[in-house]
Amino acid sequence: MGSWQDDVENYGRFLAAHASYEEARAVLLGVPMDYTSSYRPGSRFGPQAIRAASVVLEEYSVVLDEALDSNGVCDLGDLALPFGNVDRALDLMEGAAGRIFSEKKMGGFLGGEHLVSLPLIRAAHGCYPDLVVLHFDAHADLREEYAGESLSHATVMRRVAEILKPHHLFQFGIRSGAQEEWAFAREHTRLFDGDILESLQRILLEVGGLPVYVSLDIDVADPAYAPGTGTPEPGGCTSAELLRVVWAMKGLNVVGFDVVEVCPSVDQGERTAILAAKLVREMLIAHRVRSSR
Amino acid sequence: MGSWQDDVENYGRFLAAHASYEEARAVLLGVPMDYTSSYRPGSRFGPQAIRAASVVLEEYSVVLDEALDSNGVCDLGDLALPFGNVDRALDLMEGAAGRIFSEKKMGGFLGGEHLVSLPLIRAAHGCYPDLVVLHFDAHADLREEYAGESLSHATVMRRVAEILKPHHLFQFGIRSGAQEEWAFAREHTRLFDGDILESLQRILLEVGGLPVYVSLDIDVADPAYAPGTGTPEPGGCTSAELLRVVWAMKGLNVVGFDVVEVCPSVDQGERTAILAAKLVREMLIAHRVRSSR
Amino acid sequence: MGSWQDDVENYGRFLAAHASYEEARAVLLGVPMDYTSSYRPGSRFGPQAIRAASVVLEEYSVVLDEALDSNGVCDLGDLALPFGNVDRALDLMEGAAGRIFSEKKMGGFLGGEHLVSLPLIRAAHGCYPDLVVLHFDAHADLREEYAGESLSHATVMRRVAEILKPHHLFQFGIRSGAQEEWAFAREHTRLFDGDILESLQRILLEVGGLPVYVSLDIDVADPAYAPGTGTPEPGGCTSAELLRVVWAMKGLNVVGFDVVEVCPSVDQGERTAILAAKLVREMLIAHRVRSSR
Amino acid sequence: MGSWQDDVENYGRFLAAHASYEEARAVLLGVPMDYTSSYRPGSRFGPQAIRAASVVLEEYSVVLDEALDSNGVCDLGDLALPFGNVDRALDLMEGAAGRIFSEKKMGGFLGGEHLVSLPLIRAAHGCYPDLVVLHFDAHADLREEYAGESLSHATVMRRVAEILKPHHLFQFGIRSGAQEEWAFAREHTRLFDGDILESLQRILLEVGGLPVYVSLDIDVADPAYAPGTGTPEPGGCTSAELLRVVWAMKGLNVVGFDVVEVCPSVDQGERTAILAAKLVREMLIAHRVRSSR
Amino acid sequence: MGSWQDDVENYGRFLAAHASYEEARAVLLGVPMDYTSSYRPGSRFGPQAIRAASVVLEEYSVVLDEALDSNGVCDLGDLALPFGNVDRALDLMEGAAGRIFSEKKMGGFLGGEHLVSLPLIRAAHGCYPDLVVLHFDAHADLREEYAGESLSHATVMRRVAEILKPHHLFQFGIRSGAQEEWAFAREHTRLFDGDILESLQRILLEVGGLPVYVSLDIDVADPAYAPGTGTPEPGGCTSAELLRVVWAMKGLNVVGFDVVEVCPSVDQGERTAILAAKLVREMLIAHRVRSSR
Amino acid sequence: MGSWQDDVENYGRFLAAHASYEEARAVLLGVPMDYTSSYRPGSRFGPQAIRAASVVLEEYSVVLDEALDSNGVCDLGDLALPFGNVDRALDLMEGAAGRIFSEKKMGGFLGGEHLVSLPLIRAAHGCYPDLVVLHFDAHADLREEYAGESLSHATVMRRVAEILKPHHLFQFGIRSGAQEEWAFAREHTRLFDGDILESLQRILLEVGGLPVYVSLDIDVADPAYAPGTGTPEPGGCTSAELLRVVWAMKGLNVVGFDVVEVCPSVDQGERTAILAAKLVREMLIAHRVRSSR
Repeated sequence: MGSWQDDVENYGRFLAAHASYEEARAVLLGVPMDYTSSYRPGSRFGPQAIRAASVVLEEYSVVLDEALDSNGVCDLGDLALPFGNVDRALDLMEGAAGRIFSEKKMGGFLGGEHLVSLPLIRAAHGCYPDLVVLHFDAHADLREEYAGESLSHATVMRRVAEILKPHHLFQFGIRSGAQEEWAFAREHTRLFDGDILESLQRILLEVGGLPVYVSLDIDVADPAYAPGTGTPEPGGCTSAELLRVVWAMKGLNVVGFDVVEVCPSVDQGERTAILAAKLVREMLIAHRVRSSR
Repeated sequence: MGSWQDDVENYGRFLAAHASYEEARAVLLGVPMDYTSSYRPGSRFGPQAIRAASVVLEEYSVVLDEALDSNGVCDLGDLALPFGNVDRALDLMEGAAGRIFSEKKMGGFLGGEHLVSLPLIRAAHGCYPDLVVLHFDAHADLREEYAGESLSHATVMRRVAEILKPHHLFQFGIRSGAQEEWAFAREHTRLFDGDILESLQRILLEVGGLPVYVSLDIDVADPAYAPGTGTPEPGGCTSAELLRVVWAMKGLNVVGFDVVEVCPSVDQGERTAILAAKLVREMLIAHRVRSSR
Repeated sequence: MGSWQDDVENYGRFLAAHASYEEARAVLLGVPMDYTSSYRPGSRFGPQAIRAASVVLEEYSVVLDEALDSNGVCDLGDLALPFGNVDRALDLMEGAAGRIFSEKKMGGFLGGEHLVSLPLIRAAHGCYPDLVVLHFDAHADLREEYAGESLSHATVMRRVAEILKPHHLFQFGIRSGAQEEWAFAREHTRLFDGDILESLQRILLEVGGLPVYVSLDIDVADPAYAPGTGTPEPGGCTSAELLRVVWAMKGLNVVGFDVVEVCPSVDQGERTAILAAKLVREMLIAHRVRSSR
Repeated sequence: MGSWQDDVENYGRFLAAHASYEEARAVLLGVPMDYTSSYRPGSRFGPQAIRAASVVLEEYSVVLDEALDSNGVCDLGDLALPFGNVDRALDLMEGAAGRIFSEKKMGGFLGGEHLVSLPLIRAAHGCYPDLVVLHFDAHADLREEYAGESLSHATVMRRVAEILKPHHLFQFGIRSGAQEEWAFAREHTRLFDGDILESLQRILLEVGGLPVYVSLDIDVADPAYAPGTGTPEPGGCTSAELLRVVWAMKGLNVVGFDVVEVCPSVDQGERTAILAAKLVREMLIAHRVRSSR
Repeated sequence: MGSWQDDVENYGRFLAAHASYEEARAVLLGVPMDYTSSYRPGSRFGPQAIRAASVVLEEYSVVLDEALDSNGVCDLGDLALPFGNVDRALDLMEGAAGRIFSEKKMGGFLGGEHLVSLPLIRAAHGCYPDLVVLHFDAHADLREEYAGESLSHATVMRRVAEILKPHHLFQFGIRSGAQEEWAFAREHTRLFDGDILESLQRILLEVGGLPVYVSLDIDVADPAYAPGTGTPEPGGCTSAELLRVVWAMKGLNVVGFDVVEVCPSVDQGERTAILAAKLVREMLIAHRVRSSR
Repeated sequence: MGSWQDDVENYGRFLAAHASYEEARAVLLGVPMDYTSSYRPGSRFGPQAIRAASVVLEEYSVVLDEALDSNGVCDLGDLALPFGNVDRALDLMEGAAGRIFSEKKMGGFLGGEHLVSLPLIRAAHGCYPDLVVLHFDAHADLREEYAGESLSHATVMRRVAEILKPHHLFQFGIRSGAQEEWAFAREHTRLFDGDILESLQRILLEVGGLPVYVSLDIDVADPAYAPGTGTPEPGGCTSAELLRVVWAMKGLNVVGFDVVEVCPSVDQGERTAILAAKLVREMLIAHRVRSSR
């Protein structure tokens, strides 16, 4: 068999993520769980959709003036999860993420519903006790329980707040929730409901060099920009604003991130997946130096 | 039969609209007419779509800091209308709306095409002779006749202007029309073509405590935010701007409102219906005190 | 301006229908009314969709072994109808069809909802008093009135039966209706509920050389074959069976036909429109000799 | 408040299912679980879609020559289930179904994924120890476990077989499975892989007057007829054949049935939901006498 | 045949473009090529979609206060191109455009992929040697070659730059490209990556009365506003901004323009086509005086 | 890095095609060309869609009573082709296929448009001079040229007939073409227009042990079963019939096959891709013994 196979392409990986696990500084992993979704399930296909959409993008970021292909990214594929078994699935995710963080690689995770952030942040927190979480979302996700369950996409940030040091959870873009969630936020989190970029800039110095995990629910963008999501909430930001937010985090010490709640079955023209892929590309390029320390 | 039926849900009503007609201060009624649509019909399914979409929302409004479920709203369902018979349909609507207004309940109507606003406003005007109409729309809807018909979605605001006191019709967001309509508007209505929120704020004091009917054609928003509509017109406002407009009307004495021209067959991901449902929720919360007087 | 414009194409006409009205033996006319639709409107866009889909077809019919382009067909475009005014619309259709039939051209009509068949058959009956109507449909359409209206897609064949000579209405493929319709059919029409082709073959001799109008509601086919229609009814025939039915009518004296209830907004991949276009092509080829008499 | 509300419609119930629970002989209940789906989730919206689609149908069945509206059907709505908690959800379903069966009402259940059949059949078996299950499906669903889980849509009929008396599980239309499932079927179930109607007719006498539960996975039909389902499998039956199967069961003593795996997010034009609704209508009409015993 | 045919409509032409080629001052021509598309082909159906969408618009432009119907526009239809043969197709386009420009008519071209601009601009340059090109796009399109081909949608503006006088190519809205393209742009084009309207206003005086060709790739708008395109790129402008850009060019001497990369198969609700049609309408109205000189 | 990566999945390969090229007896290769498509392009995404759809299937074939995973299949991915350059693309395909055939592996090719069959068959013919081609299609594809081009999806089988020995091209399911194609077929090919399975069975003995290449255009199935294709033609076979055809070829000496014209952008619910994937699975299982000789 000869070199003609160089002309063959496989679409199963994220754009330019050709590194082996060992050589990679950053690792992408799909976490296709959507069992606790309360409205539209289907985000289990989010990781595949983001990968497929990534090929519409260039590898070069105009704003960061750097290309992805020099970056040492490994795309592991999707974690195989047991359908319908939430506890086992969370354990599997925490185990996989723990390995990645313990080897000081930056972990980039593709959801899946928002509950996946819990085991991922737990794993990051295990390696980085001072961890700060920057949470971008339309919904507060701070309920004590939801439909009688304490583990749910609607409770995930309450569970996260219980893990982190006080006030290490920052929330941006929140525009929907129950009254109890706002009460909780006033006591326990740093919730911003104004312009996302301005809010972020106000806390950058405070975060300084602390290890940061970014959890980005794609529904923080308006449904006009991210229609392919489970619980779209009108009144969000634009894709241009979201990109500026990612660029503004360039100086932070981001050790891990997730992009969750991309739901392909309602993502006409794949544009939510394309937006997610572009955000992932910019995150991977922006944080390559820090994450390799 | 026991209490286990408390675990059973019915999706045929708007979010939290569990009140009986008698106890309700606000009444929702679907008016599923779309016979005079000139481009894409299908807004007859708008009311059902708005109800179904409403469950994706919280009952609590972050901005108004109040929840819907304490509000006394009755959702009557859809008015049964004779297919293709415009005159009989308009009569049925005027009759139903007249009952609601005569009992001093706030009437919230879900369209349907824009012509439904004519009998609804007629009924409101019958109870409130000083009625002011605030009209949000991409189109002026001021033609004398359309395709030879004087009763049409394209003539509805001309007919409304003929009912109201002079200059009691305010039009916002208008960006499309025939030349004759602009000529008419200069004489007979208060048409604003600039920023919607600014325009509204300029006239709030003038409207003061007069009884107000709000007629909101969802196509006032840009097709990016409200793709599910019959005659999308590029260049409109965002969903965030539209929400701010609704919040700005909080102090007014709104006695009735409609949200029209939601067309589910082109509403990918139901996001126009979700936007409409959120606007309806905010209207219901914002005007609960006044409307119960 | 030179001959380079020979390389220019216009998609506004049915496949190969380049004849002028004067020279044409067969005339196509769109009748885009859908105001009395009781479920999904949108068949007003049927004629345009059928034309656009026709270009996917060859002009040559393998089974009839003849091509469309030698056939003298004029496609007039769509009749401009007043939105929402049923009576005026029916009058306009009857007038146009009357002209076509009075000049002994075969009239082929593209709907539109099924009520359009009433004025078209009335016009045909005006020129051909012995007219026989062959009605292919999932629904009997024999109600006395529907939602209080006597003119409706659900009453159209009752109205047709009142015009024709006794037992000149033959109905095929019917698998849905109200109990009263079956009672009416037993007295007044020739309703067949078995295999369509067999039923047709049984009555061919009886019809003989009488002038025939074929009214084909596309929902006679199963929704698997014709998903793009207003009221799909499971349990229908295949597209292959429908084509055989059209070929079986070759020997009849067809003076006019309609294909109705194609509803593009639910016609994924345009395959209902393509099926309709193929049926129209076969009708135009099959009946070219007779229709030119 | 007056009689004008007679003109108001609510679409939250199945066609003509206006009876109260107490007076009803047959009870419809939605069981919107889809957490163990291995490919496309979304069948949780199946019950709502089937209800919405039912309005496109007539209440009268041409073949059974009887109408639904004289039948005493109550549509309870959907059971509220905890998202992601399989065990609690199954318990809730078994409890609700147990009440219905213990009061000798016929239970008609709208799924949801196929795992919902397990608690429903358990409840039926609790009241009818001789219960026979007729299972229509493309997939055998006989695995010992799936993705490490013993409770799954792919194991449900293995669990059912463990409950029933030997050889009381009849399987029809099966055309996909793992090798181990065929081995199990040869020992423990009555699996037919030929023509569905013929297979059914062969066992009708054997079943005789035994209480029967019908579990119908909509994917038994070919994807051409039922595209809106989670795991479509080419090579299935037509909708006409499926209707004949339902009619052939008329003489049996059906005490309960489910129609599962309708997945609206991929059900273009709602035709899978319409097919399901027609099957439900025919089941409700066909079994009204027996079920009221 | 009588005057009743005045009631007949044909949808094959752009809104109000009823002029003959001879009398027209502006000529519309579809150039349906999409063979070099690297992601989603399908823009070959762009011209038809733009025409069909144009009927949703009024003929009157509120901002320009003038109507299209007084404008003398001829819509020739689509150029018939050989499928898959790039060279022959480019020759045919250059020939047709050359005729239009040589007769001093304004040429408006509807794509098709972006490579179509090369022969069109070549033709314009043949008649207007001082030609300035204003290029609006998300992508720089400045590669030397792409996938081994020098003629591609990704190289088109490099080829254009080679034709024009130095610095006669102005590029706006560019937010994606390879690193080499930026290097080329710095030397050879006037590339602006900030706000489009501001950038344009800065160069208006410089362009002055020079003949201008406007090449507008619809993906310059954000995918929220123009989802129906082959390679959507998040972070673009709004439809309102794009309209203001068109209005700002009113004083320029525009001799030709194209609107390219509208891809109907992913254009849900046709809103990209509607946006394109509105841009075309405004271009035709804005430049009617100059173009007729 | 440890064994936890065994839980990770990659969706870029066909179901169970885990063999390396060297060990594989059968090789899958995507050939994503669609430049000469005359109606809807987009089949370039066919190979990816077929792979993604394959995971919905079991690895075990009930009818062939054998599973795919014991079969030694390598999925190479897609050949990288130059967009818009037909000649270079055909050369690349012929080269790749030539390598596969020369190493006596069975080649399975996923299209792409039908023109891809030409270089693939050329390569197969180079290794097997007695090659017989079995061609399943709705269209004859026998034109001398199309739109002025001799290399086109509409001419491909004419070119194939020119390569093969006389009467070594068998055509099944053909129901559309131009008159000239039928004339050519009568002289040069074995074209069957009746029932596909019967026609095939009639020629099985004649083909005997000759090397066979199967070229299957998915549009041979009716659009009800295969809506996701470029030029759907009503009147085709069912998916069950197509499966029976594949099973009937089990005894033949199939050395290569292609499945072409799957067009995902119009393949709602991915069911054409699923059908194609099932056909590929059955081909791979049925021909594993012979092909390894």
